[in-house]
Amino acid sequence: MTIYRAPIQDTLFVLNDVLGYQRYSNLPGFSDATPDVLEAILAEGAKLAENVMHPLNRVGDMEGCVRHGDGSVTTPKGFREAFDQYREGGWMGLAAPAEFGGQGLPYTVHTAVSEYMVSANMALMMYPGLTQGAIAAIITHGTDEQRATWLPKLVEGAWTGTMNLTEPHCGTDLGLLRSKAVPNGDGTYRISGQKIFISAGEHDMSDNIVHLVLARIEGAPEGVKGISLFIVPKLKLDASGNPGQRNTVSCGSIEEKMGIHGNSTCVMNYDEAEGTLLGEANGGLKAMFTMMNEARLGVGLQGLSLSEIAYQNAVSYAKDRLQGRSLSGAKAPDKKADPIIVHPDIRRSLMTMKAFNEAGRALALWTAIKSDVAHRAGDDKDRQAADDYTGLLTPVVKGVLTDKGFDHAVMAQQVFGGHGYIEEHGMSQFVRDARIAMIYEGANGIQALDLVGRKLAQNGGRAVQAFFKEVAEFCEENRADEKLAPFTKALKKGLNDLQAATMWLVQNAMAKPDNAGAASTDYMHLFGLVALGYMWAQMARAAGVKLAEGANGAASFYDNKLVTARFFMERIMPETATRLARISSGADTLMALPAEAF
Amino acid sequence: MTIYRAPIQDTLFVLNDVLGYQRYSNLPGFSDATPDVLEAILAEGAKLAENVMHPLNRVGDMEGCVRHGDGSVTTPKGFREAFDQYREGGWMGLAAPAEFGGQGLPYTVHTAVSEYMVSANMALMMYPGLTQGAIAAIITHGTDEQRATWLPKLVEGAWTGTMNLTEPHCGTDLGLLRSKAVPNGDGTYRISGQKIFISAGEHDMSDNIVHLVLARIEGAPEGVKGISLFIVPKLKLDASGNPGQRNTVSCGSIEEKMGIHGNSTCVMNYDEAEGTLLGEANGGLKAMFTMMNEARLGVGLQGLSLSEIAYQNAVSYAKDRLQGRSLSGAKAPDKKADPIIVHPDIRRSLMTMKAFNEAGRALALWTAIKSDVAHRAGDDKDRQAADDYTGLLTPVVKGVLTDKGFDHAVMAQQVFGGHGYIEEHGMSQFVRDARIAMIYEGANGIQALDLVGRKLAQNGGRAVQAFFKEVAEFCEENRADEKLAPFTKALKKGLNDLQAATMWLVQNAMAKPDNAGAASTDYMHLFGLVALGYMWAQMARAAGVKLAEGANGAASFYDNKLVTARFFMERIMPETATRLARISSGADTLMALPAEAF
Repeated sequence: MTIYRAPIQDTLFVLNDVLGYQRYSNLPGFSDATPDVLEAILAEGAKLAENVMHPLNRVGDMEGCVRHGDGSVTTPKGFREAFDQYREGGWMGLAAPAEFGGQGLPYTVHTAVSEYMVSANMALMMYPGLTQGAIAAIITHGTDEQRATWLPKLVEGAWTGTMNLTEPHCGTDLGLLRSKAVPNGDGTYRISGQKIFISAGEHDMSDNIVHLVLARIEGAPEGVKGISLFIVPKLKLDASGNPGQRNTVSCGSIEEKMGIHGNSTCVMNYDEAEGTLLGEANGGLKAMFTMMNEARLGVGLQGLSLSEIAYQNAVSYAKDRLQGRSLSGAKAPDKKADPIIVHPDIRRSLMTMKAFNEAGRALALWTAIKSDVAHRAGDDKDRQAADDYTGLLTPVVKGVLTDKGFDHAVMAQQVFGGHGYIEEHGMSQFVRDARIAMIYEGANGIQALDLVGRKLAQNGGRAVQAFFKEVAEFCEENRADEKLAPFTKALKKGLNDLQAATMWLVQNAMAKPDNAGAASTDYMHLFGLVALGYMWAQMARAAGVKLAEGANGAASFYDNKLVTARFFMERIMPETATRLARISSGADTLMALPAEAF
Repeated sequence: MTIYRAPIQDTLFVLNDVLGYQRYSNLPGFSDATPDVLEAILAEGAKLAENVMHPLNRVGDMEGCVRHGDGSVTTPKGFREAFDQYREGGWMGLAAPAEFGGQGLPYTVHTAVSEYMVSANMALMMYPGLTQGAIAAIITHGTDEQRATWLPKLVEGAWTGTMNLTEPHCGTDLGLLRSKAVPNGDGTYRISGQKIFISAGEHDMSDNIVHLVLARIEGAPEGVKGISLFIVPKLKLDASGNPGQRNTVSCGSIEEKMGIHGNSTCVMNYDEAEGTLLGEANGGLKAMFTMMNEARLGVGLQGLSLSEIAYQNAVSYAKDRLQGRSLSGAKAPDKKADPIIVHPDIRRSLMTMKAFNEAGRALALWTAIKSDVAHRAGDDKDRQAADDYTGLLTPVVKGVLTDKGFDHAVMAQQVFGGHGYIEEHGMSQFVRDARIAMIYEGANGIQALDLVGRKLAQNGGRAVQAFFKEVAEFCEENRADEKLAPFTKALKKGLNDLQAATMWLVQNAMAKPDNAGAASTDYMHLFGLVALGYMWAQMARAAGVKLAEGANGAASFYDNKLVTARFFMERIMPETATRLARISSGADTLMALPAEAF
């Protein structure tokens, strides 16, 4: 049996002391989520995650989902009841607009709570997770009628949503998609085609399922310019808006996957299913990206969530398992051996995960705040600056947090030795579940290309320049502070490497785009190192402030932050040099071999 | 369905052109394995691997092993028949002494063929793999009678072997083990206790199973000094040496594991089972290490094998899957999209795997040659020097090849996008199977400690100094060769980092052993980078020689080696700097937090 405790104190430290959550109290929704309310919400969310979601995590892995002959799908025992509690607690609509039944609280608060829920049960949380994407797309692109029709039930959680993009021959390259939509003449369409890898495509946890489906209207242009997005419900609505007649969409099979067994990943067959257009005809890609951006932050969070729970279990095992003696003399002389947490190589793993989790949480919450500001600020300039940041940080959060999240699930499993390889201990599940986050919602290679190929250059590099300026100013402002010097110096060194890499791209990628592609993954990780390092430098400063104030009896909490910040700067930050060396080696050697040489 | 083709041309290049296999023809066994014979053996081994072992790989994963109520275990369909062919082909005894029915060929040849077999079916090959360890231990530590009793059947493959070390509370720290042995007075012992994680502990593939079991003779000293090794057969032998009465050892359960489902990982219960002492009383640790060292090289090879087959499948998919267009203009304009191998980020993954596989193969075969020389050379000094190398390289081969092997299985899976996460494509199995190699036969953290804590200091650093000298001399000798300069320069830089790290350890680890522990994993990988870089520099030189000679119609093969060598030096070697920075940051920050801070 695995353990899980929501890291509330860490979340509050990041929001209140590091990111200055109170500064945003003038924004809609933030005024309702005062520090006290915030703390209460986190505590309630933690309870649900720890006591309801987490106990079902292994059940979900072992039972998986079962498809029956009629195409219906049964989810693992307890999932429906747990989702009922989630729904009844109002968690689905926490950040959704009040006019559709939501609570209108900050997306930041939703993000903070989601971390806990996903740590506790990633597969289960995918059902509401996909629904959030559908809500976002319908809010942004729906007509008034569509919003009134679909949103209240989705926000309530009575219905769930899906994203239907991928087809067997077409994943990343959506221009190839073949599903077609034929107008009925009454504003509805008949949608036909096969979609694969549809998470939560069919299940027994809600009264209806609202599929958002990419398809091509008859006669539309080729490629991505001819794709439209449709709302296709599992059950068509009757005159009073209740689920009625079955639509001609069905689950053809469910995939046997490496992990997230508790989520039903479906092959969905559309056979002239009735749907309505969401957004403009041939504007499906844009509408889809509304879903995708939010979903990508959510997937990044999955990386952090799994790293956190895997870490907690590794810590627990490392304190408990007696094996060998400390190199510096017995630490538990009364026992047959010392707990393995005394061994430096075990420490190395634990500290690496800890340093990542705490900075990853800060980065995810910082991005969430930017997203809130981008959507809610009154001032246009504020909104634009925040939107720049959200766009820039989204691929970093998705790509880096999921790559590292998986690495750390593996690292935590390693702490268990042979026991980590046995399914019973649950560490294998963390690894298997974490693996998908590197792939879906745009494989991490695509995130890296999005960063290097789109986000860097957008608006003349406005977003990235703002980020560089902010980090450089932070280093400059705190340069004279001797206590912060170890952090700002290391951060500045990392920033220099990132700026050098950026300059290299500016000089070499225009004439030869392969240089951008060859650099992309290393650039994304280099960016991630600097962003996480910036989080640590800020956390160190905040911890120093708290200690100077007297720390309210929590001195050790802040002291530990300083130690972990130092670890990050000493052990993790130096990787920027290797990343820069790789980036500036260019594409020539990389691309030199003919395909038949592989 | 996965694909597999044994990389014979690469193996021959490494053995003949890089490592100078012919130079060893004066050693016993090598004279029989002339280059022609070598090639014929590789071709035969390749056939068995490709046509018999590989088709059963997925079957093994899906079916797994089944334990029945009587404790017997059924292996997956086809496993027994495939093992029959392996046995009948004489593969089990390829490198075993002729006096016990073996062919007495070099261990190097066995290693080369094993790579293919393990790529094709790792779980199946664990049954003969464990048997090799038992053979080695009995050859070295057995009495004449024990050798005559057990070896012929093991070498034939009629019986298989196991290693019984781990107990529920005791893995790495064998000093804690509790299984006990009580003398019967007639030279036999009654062995009692429970062992866990026993690979191939019970199965239906051989006529008998020879368990080598660590236990404590009644009254033996505490700790590792009181451990003895015993031979405990599943079926006791009758007067004529044939399997007869059932011994009181049985499989209590089989573990549900993340991977290697085709191998039965057993809980073994010994209830006064009859056994005989192997080697000296209380000398079990030494005897066990005879098994372990060979087993560790074998496990390192598993890392390489899985990296190779995962790579081959990623290449095949990357050439086949059409998605997007090359950044430098369409490469398959007649098709709807280009194959994804045109994308630089896909290339980055393929080149990374390729560069590792080819150097990893060279490193494994180089180590195997050293092991052959250590066992077979006539000259004491030659034997000692080779034994030094084997000891030094074993933890590097085990730790680095399995860490990287797993990383590359993950990388290859990533090339498949969502399809990689579906079990049907087989990429998940490679990841799940590769995972165990980082754990068993001494978790990789233990390999790193073995390298830093034992191997570096042994005999006043004789082994590591010899290695440094050899690599430095190679760089010096080839310094004037302009074509080799990119390789020798990068290698020298890596060597400098490794020597600096070694010096740092010399200066800082004596007074504070935690500094060694804190550095160990990074040191092992730094060592691995230099060792693999040395292999690449040698391969580049050999390729250059062949090209200068006219290359016999295979110019592109050697040209490709030069490209891949360059890739390694540009993209992988620079990591040495990060490793050195981590190592020299020391243990202070790493160990600073109290246990309760985690």
